[in-house]
Amino acid sequence: MNDSLQDIRARLAAFAQERDWDQFHTPKNLAMALSVEVAELVEHYQWLPTGADMELDDAKRAGIRHELADVLMYLVRLADKSGVDLHAAVLEKMVLNAEKYPVEQVRGDARKYSDY
Amino acid sequence: MNDSLQDIRARLAAFAQERDWDQFHTPKNLAMALSVEVAELVEHYQWLPTGADMELDDAKRAGIRHELADVLMYLVRLADKSGVDLHAAVLEKMVLNAEKYPVEQVRGDARKYSDY
Amino acid sequence: MNDSLQDIRARLAAFAQERDWDQFHTPKNLAMALSVEVAELVEHYQWLPTGADMELDDAKRAGIRHELADVLMYLVRLADKSGVDLHAAVLEKMVLNAEKYPVEQVRGDARKYSDY
Amino acid sequence: MNDSLQDIRARLAAFAQERDWDQFHTPKNLAMALSVEVAELVEHYQWLPTGADMELDDAKRAGIRHELADVLMYLVRLADKSGVDLHAAVLEKMVLNAEKYPVEQVRGDARKYSDY
Repeated sequence: MNDSLQDIRARLAAFAQERDWDQFHTPKNLAMALSVEVAELVEHYQWLPTGADMELDDAKRAGIRHELADVLMYLVRLADKSGVDLHAAVLEKMVLNAEKYPVEQVRGDARKYSDY
Repeated sequence: MNDSLQDIRARLAAFAQERDWDQFHTPKNLAMALSVEVAELVEHYQWLPTGADMELDDAKRAGIRHELADVLMYLVRLADKSGVDLHAAVLEKMVLNAEKYPVEQVRGDARKYSDY
Repeated sequence: MNDSLQDIRARLAAFAQERDWDQFHTPKNLAMALSVEVAELVEHYQWLPTGADMELDDAKRAGIRHELADVLMYLVRLADKSGVDLHAAVLEKMVLNAEKYPVEQVRGDARKYSDY
Repeated sequence: MNDSLQDIRARLAAFAQERDWDQFHTPKNLAMALSVEVAELVEHYQWLPTGADMELDDAKRAGIRHELADVLMYLVRLADKSGVDLHAAVLEKMVLNAEKYPVEQVRGDARKYSDY
């Protein structure tokens, strides 16, 4: 069984190639498309108190699920076009985050690290 | 070796729990934070012609890599808090997309399916 | 005394011309820059309960004020480059909105008109 | 004749009050809604080369015009709810921008001031 991010990357590359869409998939265009998909996700939450499950009905749950998928697809496509291994990049960034937000210092506090 | 998305999900859940951040991580707040990270990614491309590799220097490449990681982290966290399996959701959405954008109809054309 | 939107439009056009920035100010680039500024505004609110004044300190108030200005500047610049009179466009859109959201039907309800 | 920003502010306040929508119009929610409207604007440009007028048809021109209006409406509403005079805030910010981007230093160069 393939790794999930690798599987999605390969499927999207094939999908775009079959449709001759590579010409449109510049990093700049993909970043814009990604931001549009994120906004469609944000739209589901904008008038809700917290977005917790009990605030949602089935239509909204399905919409959120699909928008989450759309966001991941554009993100994986942009990373692919930028030569970035997303899993490795996350592991690298989490080391930096652990240094920026030491447990003993930030426990229960959501202020940005730069505020410290 | 663990699946990449499962691995990231587990690491982020532990990271938030250690810092007692679950209280801030409502779906609504995570969706907002996700949109902020995507904009930090978009910012790298806003004045570039296409964002292709030859338009970037090493600092910009590293910045893009880190922002891609930040976006994925908030996305995985939001999916986790929403009970959504991202890999399954993508596979499901790709079936719908294949129906909306039939190869013979959209080849080389980036208009939205709704324009057809 | 000049109209506020006209005054801002004229000042920004002069500012860009003095710096020879018109070449970068395509509608596409300005729309991206606008989205980045909006995210910097959103960032101020992402971990706050509602963003009401009592949740803010002076630094945050000043930051919000500056980001609101940045958003308006890119919006006015994009409208200018697109030949759109913003005041007229708003009056036009408000007529449509009044039809979409009749008072007696939507009072106290924030669902999107399409949900009705 | 009223100033454009003041006129829009007053019309929107009346529109919301008639519909009892003030309860939903927290700064946090309005900032989210603003970001969603900006993305609907960005969507028009995402696959276009520059968004210049000759790349648009009449439907797209009308769509852009309406989205520009939507963005301004949420921006004015958020400023109103935050007690910010947008015109004054822009004048204030433009003084800071003139210091950050001196004409002789940035002419024809779009890099961020922080890159200097």
